[in-house]
Amino acid sequence: MKKAYIAEAIGSFLLVAVVVGSGIMGASLSSGNDAIALLGNTIATSAILFVIIKMFGAVSGAHFNPAVSLVFYIRNELKFIDLILFTVFQISAGMIAIFCIHYIFQIELFQISQNIRGDWPLLASEIIATSGLILTILLIRKHDNSSVATGVALFIAAGYWFTSSTSFANPAVTISRMFTDTFTGIAPVSVPFFICGQLIGCVIGSYIFCIFDKD
Amino acid sequence: MKKAYIAEAIGSFLLVAVVVGSGIMGASLSSGNDAIALLGNTIATSAILFVIIKMFGAVSGAHFNPAVSLVFYIRNELKFIDLILFTVFQISAGMIAIFCIHYIFQIELFQISQNIRGDWPLLASEIIATSGLILTILLIRKHDNSSVATGVALFIAAGYWFTSSTSFANPAVTISRMFTDTFTGIAPVSVPFFICGQLIGCVIGSYIFCIFDKD
Amino acid sequence: MKKAYIAEAIGSFLLVAVVVGSGIMGASLSSGNDAIALLGNTIATSAILFVIIKMFGAVSGAHFNPAVSLVFYIRNELKFIDLILFTVFQISAGMIAIFCIHYIFQIELFQISQNIRGDWPLLASEIIATSGLILTILLIRKHDNSSVATGVALFIAAGYWFTSSTSFANPAVTISRMFTDTFTGIAPVSVPFFICGQLIGCVIGSYIFCIFDKD
Amino acid sequence: MKKAYIAEAIGSFLLVAVVVGSGIMGASLSSGNDAIALLGNTIATSAILFVIIKMFGAVSGAHFNPAVSLVFYIRNELKFIDLILFTVFQISAGMIAIFCIHYIFQIELFQISQNIRGDWPLLASEIIATSGLILTILLIRKHDNSSVATGVALFIAAGYWFTSSTSFANPAVTISRMFTDTFTGIAPVSVPFFICGQLIGCVIGSYIFCIFDKD
Repeated sequence: MKKAYIAEAIGSFLLVAVVVGSGIMGASLSSGNDAIALLGNTIATSAILFVIIKMFGAVSGAHFNPAVSLVFYIRNELKFIDLILFTVFQISAGMIAIFCIHYIFQIELFQISQNIRGDWPLLASEIIATSGLILTILLIRKHDNSSVATGVALFIAAGYWFTSSTSFANPAVTISRMFTDTFTGIAPVSVPFFICGQLIGCVIGSYIFCIFDKD
Repeated sequence: MKKAYIAEAIGSFLLVAVVVGSGIMGASLSSGNDAIALLGNTIATSAILFVIIKMFGAVSGAHFNPAVSLVFYIRNELKFIDLILFTVFQISAGMIAIFCIHYIFQIELFQISQNIRGDWPLLASEIIATSGLILTILLIRKHDNSSVATGVALFIAAGYWFTSSTSFANPAVTISRMFTDTFTGIAPVSVPFFICGQLIGCVIGSYIFCIFDKD
Repeated sequence: MKKAYIAEAIGSFLLVAVVVGSGIMGASLSSGNDAIALLGNTIATSAILFVIIKMFGAVSGAHFNPAVSLVFYIRNELKFIDLILFTVFQISAGMIAIFCIHYIFQIELFQISQNIRGDWPLLASEIIATSGLILTILLIRKHDNSSVATGVALFIAAGYWFTSSTSFANPAVTISRMFTDTFTGIAPVSVPFFICGQLIGCVIGSYIFCIFDKD
Repeated sequence: MKKAYIAEAIGSFLLVAVVVGSGIMGASLSSGNDAIALLGNTIATSAILFVIIKMFGAVSGAHFNPAVSLVFYIRNELKFIDLILFTVFQISAGMIAIFCIHYIFQIELFQISQNIRGDWPLLASEIIATSGLILTILLIRKHDNSSVATGVALFIAAGYWFTSSTSFANPAVTISRMFTDTFTGIAPVSVPFFICGQLIGCVIGSYIFCIFDKD
């Protein structure tokens, strides 16, 4: 098995574990003040993004996100078979992470979220989040490659606060988060709106980047 | 259309979207504890400043701020026509950001802030904030150019807390924030004091920099 | 006495002092909202990790952690006698830190924690935390050595929030924390589960790294 | 007048303005939860330290602290006359900052703090804080000069939380803080304990550094 697949799996495992675990920790300690839970969630998610991108950037490109893999496929930097396998490893590892986190926090392993997050405005929110993420990756990679890890970490830190959807911006993480009925869960009925927004955001982000990439 | 104009527009869109969106998110989740809302606002704003400066620094200089564009015009690093057009794109993009954020948070699109922030002491506060921001940009650019993005992000993080005006330090953002009656809004009656302070701060910051720039 | 031993002692002193001291400060100021105490704890711990790794990385390798020293011994980068002496200095300095912190916060110097943290799920939590920490150190050192300090600081920042054990991931710190009955203490009965998890995490982390280190 | 004096004055002005201003902002917004006020205080102080060290490091060495200037005088890196004048500019600028901050926050300009912070344990706390700060500066400067700004910023971030004195670690800032009866003030009766601790910390920090600087 190629190292890149293992890298994508471990990184996605850590990403989903941190998103969901820090949500559980934040919600359980914050006495109902969700802004404090979101602060902990933000710091933890942003921190692990820096770490996994620095760990695996040189191995697999450090996508951990089918939307990012899709962009690199469109740009001819990833083969079709790798797009498929990256996506499979990202989603599988994310779901394993959910079960591990449920186990260590001693809550029921299998859960389905009841957290209905909304529809069209949330779809628009995910378009903004995902196109911003794609632009962050492509533009900073072009101008200052060593700052991509910090850039992605900080874009998502901002995204948790300025978008009404809290910037999922990642179909693998979105699918995994259906399976936890905790602070960061998402009800299946909201998932199509999120994933549609993410795919549209991919296209818009890639298209805007082309404007800056000419000559 | 020059790429630099699009860069200024996208960066200003993201900056205003994050300032206003994170204020709405913070205020809605923090159960009336404004310090927690301000923490979220600070982390998000500071994070996006790093991102947009790294994204667009090489394209347009990454101003996103008519006060900064004015300083570069005075220093003969920006043409008069670009000063005007940068300002137009910064303000227009900021206002579009306001409407997008209102849409994704499902609140009324067109609003006028009723948040009267004060007068002379706030003008003094904006002088300190803006002259500090200009000095941060010019001095760090001179001594360690790759740290400008971090420096600006962190100066504004500090500014949110140590100035009574919370360091708007940006006429385009100030004008945009008139059009949101949420946590980060500013009533039109306060705007002239803020913009005056910002322009005076520009002059003072540029002048102090000249002391350090000789020989 | 070799400089490396003094480096390990001072770094471990600062690490334990910050973990325990920031816990006391956070708990005493946060009016019972433990999420806010944990935020302060996270920021302080993460900050000092960056500092001590940058201070002593070139002197001793900046372990401050018998689990990390063990990994370097297994990898033939540390002699057996140094593994033993590093561990002795790490634990001794950690315990001295506890007494100093109790003195400056004016609480009883000698304490035993009554904070029973749990058993098997916590052991699993420490396996995830420690293997993640070891992978962070080994992979980032391999790909971008100057980012190890930031990487470790941020992995632990995430770890405080996403693991149910709050990522002790360090036997010397675990042993020291038995001797404080404050926010960050751990009852002796929980210690074996934590240290077992840490040792298993060492092995797993090192093993996974070998997959990426080949050719 | 030498540029270095102006650099020390502006940096010290910003440092004291941020310490005191962010304390006022935090206390006024946090509904009596001092841990949240301290979080804002920490983020702001830490942020401005990075900024002023990057701005003025190449001009004056970026001390903003008579204890640091004293260490460089002892190390023959600063002339006696400059030690005196740096100290004068640091203290004067700090006091001007206090009055400016009181003005922009619209509170009485001249105040004396009534905040009695304690005696011997606080002296010990300042010894730990100041010796740690001096070691941070000297060791990181020796091993990775470009990380000194981040190192100092993060050491003080940790210091706000792990020391019972909240790591003043700076006689100029300590003296200035006598003149504000707000969150970050210090009653004159506590000042001698703090400054004694800071001077002892200077000596200890410098002495420990010599161990690592040999050969």
